[in-house]
Amino acid sequence: MLLTSLYIIGITAEGMTGALAAGRHNMDWFGVLFIACVTAIGGGSIRDVLFGHYPLTWVAHPEYLVIICIAALLTTRIPYFVARFERTFLVLDALGLAVFSIIGARIGLDLHPSGSMAVAGAIITGVFGGILRDIFCARIPLVLQKELYASISLLIGSLYVIGAYVSKNYFPLNENTIIITCLVIGFIVRLVAIRYHLGLPTFKFNPK
Amino acid sequence: MLLTSLYIIGITAEGMTGALAAGRHNMDWFGVLFIACVTAIGGGSIRDVLFGHYPLTWVAHPEYLVIICIAALLTTRIPYFVARFERTFLVLDALGLAVFSIIGARIGLDLHPSGSMAVAGAIITGVFGGILRDIFCARIPLVLQKELYASISLLIGSLYVIGAYVSKNYFPLNENTIIITCLVIGFIVRLVAIRYHLGLPTFKFNPK
Amino acid sequence: MLLTSLYIIGITAEGMTGALAAGRHNMDWFGVLFIACVTAIGGGSIRDVLFGHYPLTWVAHPEYLVIICIAALLTTRIPYFVARFERTFLVLDALGLAVFSIIGARIGLDLHPSGSMAVAGAIITGVFGGILRDIFCARIPLVLQKELYASISLLIGSLYVIGAYVSKNYFPLNENTIIITCLVIGFIVRLVAIRYHLGLPTFKFNPK
Repeated sequence: MLLTSLYIIGITAEGMTGALAAGRHNMDWFGVLFIACVTAIGGGSIRDVLFGHYPLTWVAHPEYLVIICIAALLTTRIPYFVARFERTFLVLDALGLAVFSIIGARIGLDLHPSGSMAVAGAIITGVFGGILRDIFCARIPLVLQKELYASISLLIGSLYVIGAYVSKNYFPLNENTIIITCLVIGFIVRLVAIRYHLGLPTFKFNPK
Repeated sequence: MLLTSLYIIGITAEGMTGALAAGRHNMDWFGVLFIACVTAIGGGSIRDVLFGHYPLTWVAHPEYLVIICIAALLTTRIPYFVARFERTFLVLDALGLAVFSIIGARIGLDLHPSGSMAVAGAIITGVFGGILRDIFCARIPLVLQKELYASISLLIGSLYVIGAYVSKNYFPLNENTIIITCLVIGFIVRLVAIRYHLGLPTFKFNPK
Repeated sequence: MLLTSLYIIGITAEGMTGALAAGRHNMDWFGVLFIACVTAIGGGSIRDVLFGHYPLTWVAHPEYLVIICIAALLTTRIPYFVARFERTFLVLDALGLAVFSIIGARIGLDLHPSGSMAVAGAIITGVFGGILRDIFCARIPLVLQKELYASISLLIGSLYVIGAYVSKNYFPLNENTIIITCLVIGFIVRLVAIRYHLGLPTFKFNPK
C-alpha cells in the first residue's frame, strides 16, 4: 500500500522529467508520451523481461500508463513552471529511485538464493528508465558518465538482502520495517549526493 | 489469410526501406540485412517480448526472415530504381502500418479486459520497427519528432476494440469485417496525413 | 565442460574490451561495469529473451557477472597494458565469437526443425553484445559497417546444423566433435579475416 503510493509518485515524477527531455529534442506529442512512459516504466519493463516476470506491471495495470501520460501532457502546458521547481523534482526523482530499487530487489530476491539478483534487480529497475530515455534521445546515457545513481540502487538492494537474511535466519522483521529502512537510507544518501555533487571516479582512456 | 498476405507485403516494403536506410549509413551487407529485419519485424518482436507472447512470429516462421533478406538484397542492387518509386513505398508502408497495427491489437486484446493493451499492442507493433531502425542508425527516431504515424495505430487499435466490443455485447460482427474496416480507415487516414503533411503539435523546451 | 571454460575466457575478454570502450567515452565506474556486462552477456541475453529461453545465463550463474566486473575493474587499473596486448585480445575475442556462436546455435536448434533458428541464434549471440555496447555509447554499431564478424557466426551456425543433421540421419557424431570442428574452423576464418582485413561489400546510397 505504502509502496504503491510511493510508486505512483515516482512514475509521475519520472514521466514529467521524461516529457521535459522530449521537449529539449523538439519531439511531437507522441514523442513526449513515448519518452515519458519509457522513462517511468522502462526500468521495470527491462527487469521483468530479463527475469521472465510476466505480466509486466503496466500490462496488468494500464491505469499507470494513463497517469504517466496525463503528467506528461500537463508538463507540455507548463514546462517553465515545472522546470522552475527543478529542486522539487530532484527530490521526487530521488524518492522514485529508492522506491523502484526496493521493488526491483523484492522481485529479484526469489530468483537466486545468494541475493545477487535482488541487487541486480534493484540496479536494473533504478537506472534503466533513464538509460532508455537517453538512448531514444540518441545521446550517451547520463547515468553511465556521472552522478551517484546506480550506487544508490546497489546500496538499497544490498540493504534489502541483508534485511531479508536477518529476518529469515535471526529474528523476524516486519517487511514494512525493511522497506522503510531501505527507503529512508537510500533517499537520504541520494539527497546528500545531489547536494555535494558526489559521483564515482571516472575512467578516461584516450590512446593515440 | 487476407491478413497474412498483407503482412507479407508489409514486411517486404519495410525491409526495402530498412535496406535504403542502411545504405545511407554505408553499412555492409550484414548491416543491410540486420536493419531490414529490425525495421520489418522489430515492432512485432518488442510487442511479443513485452507481452510474453511466445514463440515470436519469425521463430515460428523463419521463411519471413528469408523474404525480408531477399527484398533487402534486391534493394542493394537497384537502390535508385527503388528510391524513384518512393511514392509507391509510402503507400505500401501505409498498408504495412495498418496491418501491423491490427495484428498488434488482436494480440493485445486478450491481455486486459479494458482493451487498453489492444491499443498499446497496435502502437508498439506499428511504430517500434521504425524506432529500432533509427536507434541502430544512431539518430533520434523520426516517428518521435514528426509524422502522423503512431496516431494511426492508436486510431486502428481503438477501432478494433470498439468493433470487438460491439460484436460481443450488441450484435455479432464477422472478424473480417472488423479487420477490413480498421484497415481501410487507417490506410486512408495515413494517406491523407502524407498528402497534406499532417502531424501532431511539437513540444519545444529550451531553457537557458 | 570445454565449452564452459572457453565461455568464461570469452566473457572475460569481452568484458575487458567493453571497459576500454567505456573509458574512451569517459564513463564512471558504473558505466565501465555496465558496458563491460552488456558487451559480454548482452548477446546471450537478447537471444534468450527473443527465444523465451529462461532463466538467462547470468540469472542462473551470477558468478559470471562477478568475473566480468573484476575483469573490467582490473582493466581500469592497467588500460595501456591491456591496450598494448591488443593483438592478444583480438585472438581472445575471436575465440569468444566462436564459442558464443556455438552456444547460440545449440539453443536455437531446438526451436525450429529447419535449423534456421540455430543460425539465427549463432548470429544473435555472436554480434549483439558488440551492437549493444556501441548503442549505449551512442554510435552506429561497428559490426553493421565493416569487419567479417556476423558472417563467422553464420558459418559456425551452419556447420553446427550440418553436423547435427549428419549425426542424426547418417552416422552418429560425438557432440564434442561437432563443437570442436565448428570452433576451430570459425576461429581460423576469423583470424584470417583480421589478418587480411576481409570484410563484406558495403552498400552506399546517397540520393540528393
